[in-house]
Formats: sequence, structure tokens, C-alpha cells
Amino acid sequence: MSSPFDFDSVDAALKEALKGPAYEEVHRILYGRSHPELQIPKDALEIATKNNFDIRGYEITAEPEQLRAPRKVKVAAIQFSIVLPTNAPVEEQRKAIHQKVAHMIDAAVLSGANIICMHELWTMPFAFCTRERLPWTEFAESAEHGPSTKFLSQIAAKYGVVIVSSILERDESKDDVLWNAAVVISNSGKVIGKSRKNHIPRIGDFSESTYYMESTLGHPVFDTAFGKIAINVCYGRHHPQNWMMYALNGAEIIFNPCAEVVENLSPEDPTKLLLSEPMWAIEARSAAIANHCFTVPINRVGRESFPNEFTSGDGRTAHKEIGQFYGSAYVAAPDGSRTPGLSRTKDGVLVVEIDLNLCRQTKDHLCFRMTQRLDLYAKSITAAADPNYKPDIHREK
Amino acid sequence: MSSPFDFDSVDAALKEALKGPAYEEVHRILYGRSHPELQIPKDALEIATKNNFDIRGYEITAEPEQLRAPRKVKVAAIQFSIVLPTNAPVEEQRKAIHQKVAHMIDAAVLSGANIICMHELWTMPFAFCTRERLPWTEFAESAEHGPSTKFLSQIAAKYGVVIVSSILERDESKDDVLWNAAVVISNSGKVIGKSRKNHIPRIGDFSESTYYMESTLGHPVFDTAFGKIAINVCYGRHHPQNWMMYALNGAEIIFNPCAEVVENLSPEDPTKLLLSEPMWAIEARSAAIANHCFTVPINRVGRESFPNEFTSGDGRTAHKEIGQFYGSAYVAAPDGSRTPGLSRTKDGVLVVEIDLNLCRQTKDHLCFRMTQRLDLYAKSITAAADPNYKPDIHREK
Repeated sequence: MSSPFDFDSVDAALKEALKGPAYEEVHRILYGRSHPELQIPKDALEIATKNNFDIRGYEITAEPEQLRAPRKVKVAAIQFSIVLPTNAPVEEQRKAIHQKVAHMIDAAVLSGANIICMHELWTMPFAFCTRERLPWTEFAESAEHGPSTKFLSQIAAKYGVVIVSSILERDESKDDVLWNAAVVISNSGKVIGKSRKNHIPRIGDFSESTYYMESTLGHPVFDTAFGKIAINVCYGRHHPQNWMMYALNGAEIIFNPCAEVVENLSPEDPTKLLLSEPMWAIEARSAAIANHCFTVPINRVGRESFPNEFTSGDGRTAHKEIGQFYGSAYVAAPDGSRTPGLSRTKDGVLVVEIDLNLCRQTKDHLCFRMTQRLDLYAKSITAAADPNYKPDIHREK
Repeated sequence: MSSPFDFDSVDAALKEALKGPAYEEVHRILYGRSHPELQIPKDALEIATKNNFDIRGYEITAEPEQLRAPRKVKVAAIQFSIVLPTNAPVEEQRKAIHQKVAHMIDAAVLSGANIICMHELWTMPFAFCTRERLPWTEFAESAEHGPSTKFLSQIAAKYGVVIVSSILERDESKDDVLWNAAVVISNSGKVIGKSRKNHIPRIGDFSESTYYMESTLGHPVFDTAFGKIAINVCYGRHHPQNWMMYALNGAEIIFNPCAEVVENLSPEDPTKLLLSEPMWAIEARSAAIANHCFTVPINRVGRESFPNEFTSGDGRTAHKEIGQFYGSAYVAAPDGSRTPGLSRTKDGVLVVEIDLNLCRQTKDHLCFRMTQRLDLYAKSITAAADPNYKPDIHREK
């Protein structure tokens, strides 16, 4: 452990440093109840070793019920780095990533995965820092018929798995507009539908608002063979009402594909740009608690460097690297517990068996829906959205 | 460290177990940037030692600005156990607590505190588990003229501090109705106003809904001499939209006075009642991040035992103890960082100097307000509040 860039994970550090009851108590307070590790089959482990990625599994149980059988679903979160340098031809870059992902999906499927999701815009480097159009916009593709959807549809049908695919979408049927979209492919290989990013950042190197606009699709939920799922893309994680609307539409699992980098911690550069890593363990887990559902935040890993230098609007000198994506995918449960995270630095597959019955069990127990007073907030948020809203402020008379 | 009931805190365990760069990196990822410790004056330390409570301080800084001077405010969170057994006369129980609090406020004031807040219903044991009326409802008092408000008003005026006082309120002017209220007393000793609990639990021993109803006062914010503050009482912590409305009304600091117990972890009792401890570090901090404000969750400590046994509706046998309140008060900052928490078991005063300029600085940087799409949520939450709302669910065609 020499720098923030190669520190593996908080979880690994705690497990190494703390022993016995101290570890158990820290784990309980930090992470809630312990979840047993899932046995990963030997052939999946072999693929992981051969292709240099981690694979880990956990099991999140629910209480047995009399009238409902357990609804066990295995969710797989897949995080990885790009393969080729960003100046390689677009088609080659994408193909190399497809090849890498194929191995990781194979390992997930061998581990029993039913629903698989990769990080945000998994088909391409996160090039929006450049504010350049070509060649980056060439990575955009049709959600319904693009090469990545075709590639995943074949896999989904072959293995009978649902795949959530976050891509840069070009809406060919509507004026060629670009979107940050998530495509949901069913276990028969068909596109069930798509969701789009509702909230778009304007921070540092994340010049995404230059490329696409906020979704006009609202908060769609997809009723798949393995449960009702939704996709809250990246920065939408910071908005509790975004999670809430997906859950109010019935989502039992909300995926959160992301692209998040470690803060600029270089001693040569005095600007400490506040970014998201200390928030990573907080927000998606808070959403799982507040909404009685599972959440699955997934972040890419690795460093990405671009041919031409760019500036960030944060006082740093011009640079070609967006920074290091910090991985750390995990699954948060409605009861406040969570799994350990994947590595901050290494490609990985996290397979978690969840019992969807836990959503309703927690709902009945903690009662946040029953006590949410939605009518109060419908009125107060409507009032607050009015540009002439007068905040309710009291002063000493 | 032998049982979950006497484990001091995650923070203390980490500091003991991890050294050097590993500690720093775990700290950064778990807690955000480090906050320097505040020097606690000798006379405050002496009061703390003499009266057997902890006192700790931290400083949360903001960047210097050209047009605004720093707006430094010292916030004090005070957590403690009740003093007398719950079968002592009501008046004596309350007086003993007043005496204890007086020492703790003295130490906070000597440490420079400007705004002070105790845990939920600090004047009494948390007797709602009993579902008995007398003598517990005798602890209820007028928010404007009750003995605890008078007691604190004198202190507030004497020291020039703002005090937030969470009490069981009897609204003598409105049919003697009981409320779970928070009174805001200004630095001149006058009552600025009151807030009431918006969301009320129905879990295990927390039979509070038997005693009082949800607030009809909305989300008032109090513009004090030291900043705009609001109070989100206890279980309201689980509702992100509750925090949001306080912040949309302008709150820079949201206090969260609580009464939360450790899960029932006794090996003799197989029922593991899911409660809030693993959520404690998540929710208030998530709210500080999402709303660009400071949050201050404060929980009581100690065990409370009642004269007559009661049941919880969770399968446990009848019992007289509500369990152990786990303290752990902390301050969360809008930039995702937080202070270490107070002890889980011991009375304590946490004094944190914050610079309110950090709220707007983080707002301008992370832009969650700018990107919140309040008009979208006004419409979608209004729609979802309709009993005939049809969730937006998509299926394979």
C-alpha cells in the first residue's frame, strides 16, 4: 500500500488489520449483518485467473415465508478497464472490450448469474473529458440494433440471462441525437426497453453535459424473468428522489452503472478536486435502505489517457489522463447490510445471490413506505418547484 | 471489547488497528478528508472528567473566498443517559437530567459552542415502549413555557447560545394534544419557534405512534444568529424527502435528535430484530451530501428499564428493558466528509467548528441543486401519490 491509486479496498484492509470479535463488531456496525461467501465454481475461477480478474460471491438471505417461496436471484456486477489505447481505431477498441467482457460474462454465468450489469458506457473509454467529438461520438450506437446490443443479445439468449447495458446511444430514429442510455436485454435476447440518464454532471473532467441531455423517459422499470429492475445511471446516484421514483415504480433491484475517478491527490498539483469516492459507500446504500430495495453500484477501473490534452475548469494544468477509476462495485440490501466491494484497481465480477422477498419483508418491518407521507411531499415539492416559492423561515420576533 | 454492548466505536477500533498510510487511506475512503482536532480548553476537560463524560472537538474548514468572510460556527451535539431509575418521581427524574445537562452545556460553552442540541426527548426516559400513559405523559410540557424550555432559556441568554430542545410537548392551547417537538431557543433566550416530528416509527419497542401523530407544521427552518437550522427528528432520518424539504427551505445545519437502540443480539433470544445501527453512519451523511448542508445526528446512550414488562410485537418474550441506546453522535459535512463519532456507550459532548461557506461552495461545485430537476419530481411524485397511479413498468413484448 503506497498510494491511494493502488490501495485495494477498505474491506481488505479491515479484514487484515482487525481480528475476531473486533472485526465482527466493526463489520456489523459498518456493513450490517454478515453475508456468507458464495462458492465460485472451479471453471469460473479458472477463467478469472486466466484473464486476470477477481471473482467473488456472497449470499443475501431473507426469512422463509409460508405463502411465498424464496425468490432467489443471482445478480452479477462486472467492472473492468478498457483494453486498447484510446488512439486505436474505434472498431478495434470496441471489439477488444467485447472480447474481455465475454470472458467475464462466461465466469458470471458459470457462477449462476441471472442478471448481469457492467459499469457505465462499458463499450468505450470515458472520453467526455476531451470535449472533442470525433472519434468519440463514433462509439455511439443504436440501443435497439447497435453492435453491442447485438453482441449481448446473443449471449443473453444463449445463456438465458438478463443483461443491462449502459451505452452511448445514437437515436437514429430521432434526429441522430446522442443519449446516455441503458438497454435492458431479456433472457430471450430481446430488447425489453431502455432507460436514460436523468441527471448529468458538470464537474471537473466530467464534461458530459457537452454531449447529451437529461432523459425525457422518466423512471421506467423493467419486469424481467428475474425480478423488476431499474437503472439509475451514475450521477443520478446523488439524487435521492431519482432512486425513489424508480422504487415507486416497483423496482426491486436498481443498478447504478458509473464512471468515477479517485480525487486528484498528486502532491505536485495543489488543487484537491472534491469527487465522489467517500460518497461511494454512502449513497447507493442509503437508497437501498430508504426504498426497501437492492442497489448495485458498479464503477469502471483503470486509467484512461487521451491523445490531446484538456483542461478541467478546476485550476489544474492541462492533462491527458482523466484519472483512475476506482471500481469498488458492491450490492446493498434493503435491510441496511451490504456486501464487501470489489477491488479499487482490478477487473472483477461480483456475483451476489439475493432473495427478493427481503424487499417486502423489510418494507413491512421498517414501514418507510407506509410512513412516507407522499401526499405531503407531492404538495411541498410542487410548491418548492415554483420559482416564486417562499421558503418557510422563522426568525426571532 | 467483549460484547456489542460495550464496544466503544468503529473509529476508535480503526485508529487502534490501522497504522500510517493504511489508516489514512481507509479514513479517506470511509470518512472523506481528515478534520483537525479542536483544542478543548482545560476547564472544559475538567468538567468532563469530573462528571464522567467525553468531550471531543473537530474543525471542518472551507476555502477562503474574496467576497464573503468565513462563517464559522461551533455546533455541539450532546448525548447522555438518564440519571435516576424510571420509577423515581417524575419531577426528580427531570431535575436530575437538567443538572446533568447543565454541566455538559457548561463544557460545550467553554469550548466555544454557539448552537447546542441534545438527543431526542432529552428530558425523560424513552418510555413509549411501555404503551402506558401515566406517569410518562407527565413528562410532556409546553414548548413555549414548560420547565425545560425555561431552564434552557436562562442558559441560552446567559451564554448567548442557541439551543435546540427535543421534548414531549403538550399543546396546552390546542386540546392538550401531545407532540414530539423540537423547540428552538435563540441566543437571547427567547423561543424562536418549534418543529415537530414528521415521520413516526412502528417498529419493535418503538410504540411511539400510540402517543403522538405526525407533524402538521411542515418543514420550518429557523434563521438564528449562527445560521439557518432545522430539526429532522429521529425516524424522519429514514426519509430522504424530509431532509430535502428542510434544505429547500434554506437549512444550512439539520439536527437529527434520535433515540436508537442496539439490535437484540442476546444469544438466548433467537429473534434478531433489525434496527438502525448499521444505517446510522449512512443516512444523515447521505442527506448532508444530497442537500449541500451539515447534518448532526445525536443519539442517547445507556440502558433504560421500566417498572412493568411489555412486549414488542417481534416475537421476543416480555421484557422491561428497551435495550441499549448506542450514542455515536457525529457531524456530516456537505462535501461527503464527517467527523468521528462519540462513544456508543458513554455520555459525551461533540464540539465541531464548521464554516457554513462550505454549503454554497459544495453546491456550486457538485451542482446537485442545479441538476435536481425539481419540476420533474413535483410532477412524478404528485402522480405517484395518486391512489390510482399506474407504475411505469415495461415487459417483453
